[in-house]
Amino acid sequence: MNIIPVIICGGAGTRLWPVSREAFPKPLLKLADGQSLLQKTFLRASHVANAGEVVIVTNRETYFLTKDECVEAKSGVSKLGFILEPSARNTAAAIGVAAEVVREQHGADAIMLVMPADQLVEDEAAFGAAVRHAARAAQEGRIVTFGIRPTKPETGYGYIEFDSAPLPGAQAVHKVVRFVEKPQLGVAEELVADGRHLWNAGMFCFTAETMLAELGKHAPTVLEPTIAAVNEAKRSTSKDGYTVELDGAQFGRAEDISIDYAVMERSDNVNVVPCEMGWSDIGSWLAISELTAPDARGNRIYGGAELYEVDNCFIRSENGRMIGAVGVQDLIVVDTADALLIATRDRAQDVKQIVAKLKKVNHDAYKLHRTVHRPWGTYTVLEEGDRFKMKRIVVKPNAQLSLQMHHHRSEHWIVVSGCADIVNGEQVISLQPNESTYIPAGHEHRLINPGVMDLVLIEVQCGEYLGEDDIVRFEDVYGRVPA
Amino acid sequence: MNIIPVIICGGAGTRLWPVSREAFPKPLLKLADGQSLLQKTFLRASHVANAGEVVIVTNRETYFLTKDECVEAKSGVSKLGFILEPSARNTAAAIGVAAEVVREQHGADAIMLVMPADQLVEDEAAFGAAVRHAARAAQEGRIVTFGIRPTKPETGYGYIEFDSAPLPGAQAVHKVVRFVEKPQLGVAEELVADGRHLWNAGMFCFTAETMLAELGKHAPTVLEPTIAAVNEAKRSTSKDGYTVELDGAQFGRAEDISIDYAVMERSDNVNVVPCEMGWSDIGSWLAISELTAPDARGNRIYGGAELYEVDNCFIRSENGRMIGAVGVQDLIVVDTADALLIATRDRAQDVKQIVAKLKKVNHDAYKLHRTVHRPWGTYTVLEEGDRFKMKRIVVKPNAQLSLQMHHHRSEHWIVVSGCADIVNGEQVISLQPNESTYIPAGHEHRLINPGVMDLVLIEVQCGEYLGEDDIVRFEDVYGRVPA
Repeated sequence: MNIIPVIICGGAGTRLWPVSREAFPKPLLKLADGQSLLQKTFLRASHVANAGEVVIVTNRETYFLTKDECVEAKSGVSKLGFILEPSARNTAAAIGVAAEVVREQHGADAIMLVMPADQLVEDEAAFGAAVRHAARAAQEGRIVTFGIRPTKPETGYGYIEFDSAPLPGAQAVHKVVRFVEKPQLGVAEELVADGRHLWNAGMFCFTAETMLAELGKHAPTVLEPTIAAVNEAKRSTSKDGYTVELDGAQFGRAEDISIDYAVMERSDNVNVVPCEMGWSDIGSWLAISELTAPDARGNRIYGGAELYEVDNCFIRSENGRMIGAVGVQDLIVVDTADALLIATRDRAQDVKQIVAKLKKVNHDAYKLHRTVHRPWGTYTVLEEGDRFKMKRIVVKPNAQLSLQMHHHRSEHWIVVSGCADIVNGEQVISLQPNESTYIPAGHEHRLINPGVMDLVLIEVQCGEYLGEDDIVRFEDVYGRVPA
Repeated sequence: MNIIPVIICGGAGTRLWPVSREAFPKPLLKLADGQSLLQKTFLRASHVANAGEVVIVTNRETYFLTKDECVEAKSGVSKLGFILEPSARNTAAAIGVAAEVVREQHGADAIMLVMPADQLVEDEAAFGAAVRHAARAAQEGRIVTFGIRPTKPETGYGYIEFDSAPLPGAQAVHKVVRFVEKPQLGVAEELVADGRHLWNAGMFCFTAETMLAELGKHAPTVLEPTIAAVNEAKRSTSKDGYTVELDGAQFGRAEDISIDYAVMERSDNVNVVPCEMGWSDIGSWLAISELTAPDARGNRIYGGAELYEVDNCFIRSENGRMIGAVGVQDLIVVDTADALLIATRDRAQDVKQIVAKLKKVNHDAYKLHRTVHRPWGTYTVLEEGDRFKMKRIVVKPNAQLSLQMHHHRSEHWIVVSGCADIVNGEQVISLQPNESTYIPAGHEHRLINPGVMDLVLIEVQCGEYLGEDDIVRFEDVYGRVPA
């Protein structure tokens, strides 16, 4: 049995603003132990990936960041497959392309374990056992979902009603009777009380062949474009894995529909493994706050804060700023470099309303953090003023920026840590810490970190126009120059 | 009648943290119209300064900043006297030295109008009328206080009980019966109801001679050292005014006592002018919030904020950061570059508890802002990292930093606006925007703005030690080189 975990790494996580942004989605959110949700999911996946391969469905924008996270997690996985979506087309299309890629790579009977990238599971052993039960049923051509035994009348989850008698010869797998959408509180209380309902964890197990057949039967408007998108994809492979960059025109034709609507609710071949494995869906700051034990007054504090008569608050300071709180209760406070959230605990779900407002007025804070991730490292805007802009640039070991030129701005570069090789017009120079150079407007230039530690460089830009779009790229090792 | 306003510019304003800091005291706080409390007080003083002179009692640390504020306010005052206290010794000593300085400059019968620097008065005409009544009584050797007709049972103010019959021949001036310290609420209600009590505004009017005599009689432990501190002061004069830097050893001997305890409550020569002039004491963020009309949901917002179902909140963002608020009510939120306050409206007075905690652990945020004021302009720390530190330096027109040297750090300077003359070791160079220079550790250097607009310069410091105390000053036009 080859189990290929497929991690669906999507979802902006607007309820986890201001840490989650469009360009820094929820799976990248780091918990108190320093691991991101994605890293935890990836490690969990690696433990059941008996073929040594994990597939991740993401997009071009977060590809390098996602890959860095996986490398940093130091799993035992020997092969990492990336499928890059040119646009967001919901879970049915994401699972469709993954099924086609897995079929190509491992054959039609390879077993896929689909996992959202932003969930937590405490009991890894129970997770492993549930996956084994599901995989056996999947091998027989079944679709298997995972149902969590509910512990409270949660209104934020969908529910699965299951047949109390297990499938013949498969004690842990039951037939699904029906799916119930997110209920009102009264209904949720009934569902929890009757013992016949489980939370829908959004994880699935099936063979590539089964899923392709089910999509063909119930959602041909998803299947046909996704197969075409895979067939016409740009591919690259290395010894550690492969990348499938889907064709945009084909993929864009796929119907925007969830796998639940497209297949699960339509097929009569859907089953469930009831499980108890300390599962949680990190749906809001409230869920994050509940991951840590409170102090004597019910407060949970990360970063610098001074409190005076404060109770039951969650305070997360990401930015070294001092937060002073006086007399407040039941608040969620999340502070980042450029944006701050203050919400009451009982309104944690409504944080998405702020993001919607910011998006409507096209405010940067819905999309970007002050620190922006690039394939070669990061840059952070430290200050913008009239005719100048300052950045801290961090280049990873052996990485390099594109060979580029700006029409309107000159750049002063000062190395503060590591070493830099710099192409500046006709010159090639090497800089050590406390050395600087000047790139006039119109000069072709390139910044390279030839070393084995991060290069940290301060850039002061001067000019009458300082927009990020004043860049002409001539060569780029990350494929960012249009052919 | 020569009326010399004396502004007592003290008080850290710990209840207005994080905008007020030890090095940026409450009178410097700017209101919505862009004027600081000090500027408003200074302009009010200038309108009654019929001798064309205003005296300000402050300290060395905030002298240049205070002076800049006064110049910026563009009053009609022709002469500005500064008395610099070497240490904080409460209001009796501050008024004692001011009386001695005014006596020297204008004679014993000059009339002093003592004003705290951090109050607001809406009705300038009523203020002017009250001052004229007070001055006439002062001229006859009386001490006159100003009593505000109370509009609510405020527990944060002291009260003055007055004799309902005016002084013979002085219809607006009444004898003070007694002073009442800040009362409990029940008492305050009685005081407001009986019509015989006024709020003590902390403003006073008397001749220099009267005050010196009263201090001699009731508080010789204040008078004798303050006169000695004036006699042994370092003085400088210019066409626009004078500075009296009090002798530290002498002034330090003065008793630390308020003018209320030292004189007002002990003398039988104390009178009051009852007034209604839209007076307010800016005691807390609540008082500041009440200066502006709320929107339909009771919110008052300065700076960038997006609200969702928020009521009765005061939100002040000083730093261009986006504040998202969800479901909160009755909060005060004040955001600055390095510190954030969140308090409930009814606990606005307790903000000082946070400052006390920060002071106890010696956290910078009780004392300094990220932008630090210097005689020549400002510097702002933009980023600190391992072996580097970046600052934005703004030098005022025609100002210059001291001729100085650092043992441990090199500095990269990049001009982004204005022009700079730079002494760098043996060299003297001029820089325009987008030009840079490098100051190696151990080099004597000086930064001069020869122009008529602000010079803005980015400094990147590199070195193994980057503390502000690694500075050797050789020459300084602001007297900061010890003799």
